[in-house]
Amino acid sequence: MIQALIFDVFGTCVDWRNSIAREVAAQLPQVDALAFATAWRAEYDPAMARIREGNRGYVALDDLHFENLTRVCANFGVNPADPLALNHAWEQLDPWEDVVPGLTALKKAHIIAPCSNGSIALMTRLARYGNLPWDCILGADLVRDYKPKPGVYLASCAALRLQPRQVMMVAAHNDDLTAARKTGLATGFIPRPAEHGPDQTTDLTPSEDWDIVAEDFTDLADRLAAI
Amino acid sequence: MIQALIFDVFGTCVDWRNSIAREVAAQLPQVDALAFATAWRAEYDPAMARIREGNRGYVALDDLHFENLTRVCANFGVNPADPLALNHAWEQLDPWEDVVPGLTALKKAHIIAPCSNGSIALMTRLARYGNLPWDCILGADLVRDYKPKPGVYLASCAALRLQPRQVMMVAAHNDDLTAARKTGLATGFIPRPAEHGPDQTTDLTPSEDWDIVAEDFTDLADRLAAI
Repeated sequence: MIQALIFDVFGTCVDWRNSIAREVAAQLPQVDALAFATAWRAEYDPAMARIREGNRGYVALDDLHFENLTRVCANFGVNPADPLALNHAWEQLDPWEDVVPGLTALKKAHIIAPCSNGSIALMTRLARYGNLPWDCILGADLVRDYKPKPGVYLASCAALRLQPRQVMMVAAHNDDLTAARKTGLATGFIPRPAEHGPDQTTDLTPSEDWDIVAEDFTDLADRLAAI
Repeated sequence: MIQALIFDVFGTCVDWRNSIAREVAAQLPQVDALAFATAWRAEYDPAMARIREGNRGYVALDDLHFENLTRVCANFGVNPADPLALNHAWEQLDPWEDVVPGLTALKKAHIIAPCSNGSIALMTRLARYGNLPWDCILGADLVRDYKPKPGVYLASCAALRLQPRQVMMVAAHNDDLTAARKTGLATGFIPRPAEHGPDQTTDLTPSEDWDIVAEDFTDLADRLAAI
């Protein structure tokens, strides 16, 4: 039986693209805000890859976001008046509308926690911003490494003193679930077909027979209750 | 300005003595339940001391509680039918009555988190049991060491990306605050004169000029709002 659900956050719980674009538009009105948000996010995985591969010690995602912002600003030829303030945009991402009611329903019978590459600090402030009712914050900071490295999933289960099979990883990204399944976790897929905008081509459908495939978080709560 | 408040839990937030005695009475009706609870708790600090002093690697408090239970049962000459179930008594401790309203008020303008020697697993389940509205769980597990070692306080501040002076440690125990102040945190004292029963002689009053001395958590919220 599933005792806890742990969640990917960027894309799965929150709409980073439109939320970042909103803050970019406020601070850098001269740029294409959605293009800037997409470019900023595109730096995310390469920055973590160096750390995952052992070519750099652990640096929290807050700091990677700031380094990436410097690079993206240079590419767009802009200088934000307060780049640190702009970096805090990652703490003000709007949840998809089903997330708070879905998490509230899931929390009744299950421990719920983020298992994100965001730091405890970032996840804590994001939860306060969006009223995400987490029981605790798990993820990258616990093991000072980044998903999809197996240690991040395993440390999150171990922090709850649960076996991987007692924990379900929930994500809108098939590769996150592939890694979670390899480490023994149960898997739940929710499509977020607008995460990358109207022309998204990735992660529109499940790539494997995940344990649950749900329409959204409230549907996930219903399906889990029916098991 | 104080951005976050971090809290001692056993004694400060929850009444471990009467709560443990309730579970002991249910599972071991033949013993003096309050005496058993006190004896169990008395094993707490010596068990952590070996780890703090480097004579043993980190073992989560859940496991120390279980080892201590075995010893106390031997001393009382009893054999619980399900010692693991009895050990879960530490996840079912009643909050003092001011705690949930006080934390709810404090949470409006501050990050709130436990900074306990209890594990993330234990603090998570205790929060679910008592409806403690933490933003995240900090404390011993983050650094795999026990208070009052300075690393526990410092890691808790660092996890929030805050300086120690931006964080207030709240406790009913003067020695916890002494250690927190030495590492640069602000300090808040709340007396819990019944933690150890009607004959308590320790921690009835503040031993130093703590930054705030409050009657209870709701008074703490009022005093912090007035600063």
